[in-house]
Amino acid sequence: MRPLMSADHAHHGYISDKERYLARLKRIEGQARGIHRMVDEEQYCIDILTQISALTSALQGVAVGLLDDHLKHCVTDAVRSGGDVAEQKLDEATQAIARLVRS
Amino acid sequence: MRPLMSADHAHHGYISDKERYLARLKRIEGQARGIHRMVDEEQYCIDILTQISALTSALQGVAVGLLDDHLKHCVTDAVRSGGDVAEQKLDEATQAIARLVRS
Amino acid sequence: MRPLMSADHAHHGYISDKERYLARLKRIEGQARGIHRMVDEEQYCIDILTQISALTSALQGVAVGLLDDHLKHCVTDAVRSGGDVAEQKLDEATQAIARLVRS
Amino acid sequence: MRPLMSADHAHHGYISDKERYLARLKRIEGQARGIHRMVDEEQYCIDILTQISALTSALQGVAVGLLDDHLKHCVTDAVRSGGDVAEQKLDEATQAIARLVRS
Repeated sequence: MRPLMSADHAHHGYISDKERYLARLKRIEGQARGIHRMVDEEQYCIDILTQISALTSALQGVAVGLLDDHLKHCVTDAVRSGGDVAEQKLDEATQAIARLVRS
Repeated sequence: MRPLMSADHAHHGYISDKERYLARLKRIEGQARGIHRMVDEEQYCIDILTQISALTSALQGVAVGLLDDHLKHCVTDAVRSGGDVAEQKLDEATQAIARLVRS
Repeated sequence: MRPLMSADHAHHGYISDKERYLARLKRIEGQARGIHRMVDEEQYCIDILTQISALTSALQGVAVGLLDDHLKHCVTDAVRSGGDVAEQKLDEATQAIARLVRS
Repeated sequence: MRPLMSADHAHHGYISDKERYLARLKRIEGQARGIHRMVDEEQYCIDILTQISALTSALQGVAVGLLDDHLKHCVTDAVRSGGDVAEQKLDEATQAIARLVRS
């Protein structure tokens, strides 16, 4: 996990790590294409399922990273500046967590 | 989701909602006991699996609630007071989220 | 994973492993009670969340075991005897898997 | 869920539904590309997280479908022909289910 960033440095938390996220998401896109090819080549069901589990785990890794950045920047900045925005950011974060836990 | 609480009111976020959590967890304990009884009575596998999914969802509901409270109190208070504690609380929150997403 | 059982030995697959399931479910009930106690004693949110993740994983372990037994007995017996029952058992198994994947 | 297929019609269960799987996986690939674009365009974290949850759910839908087909063909054929292959197919199916439940 990366240290807290000061508010002015990065609007959205993940932006200071943007290239890394883009590389991970490019790999995820490649994994999705790979699964499409496995079905096209009529490979064995279990092998395809193994790749789907791997892709799901990779997605979860990106999601947890984005949440960490969001908490450390958007939410932290909002809490520091006080007011209703903090409440809204925290509610949004919890709803995003709930969706992830249930997906 | 409940509104932000001032720091002095509740040490851990969930404490102001303690009775509700205790009631939910008492129900969860009862669900667990019910599943034990279903196995003891040799009920049908699929019916037992249905109850396990229901119990898992109930647990996730409690977990998301606790996280919401934790973000709105422990983490928010730490961010307001600044310093390393905020960093630590945020890291803890992200690790808890990662465990939940993967369990 | 236990070997295929002949149909007459155990009606529901898990019954030949009943005592082990009962012991695991008794522990799960104890874990649930433990989480209730942690809230009652107002312990730290993150520690409670850690226990909820552990309990969720324990439940998933029981669920996967029951599914394995169900596939190796109820479903296998139905496929061997042929007819519509096999179709129904397979549909039931897939629906149970879908619930577990989404809980 | 589709009805049981006779063994000779489709080697792997999903093959009789191949085009539908390919279309779903093409959409999934597009969703992954869309998330990459959202990060590239520095969109809001929560909106990106929402898309990741949607993609994860789409993947789970494909996985449950493949499992259903696998159980109704590869596993069912193996059980009908008897012997060790059935045991191996059932073990494989349970391991795939365990990975999905935990991812």
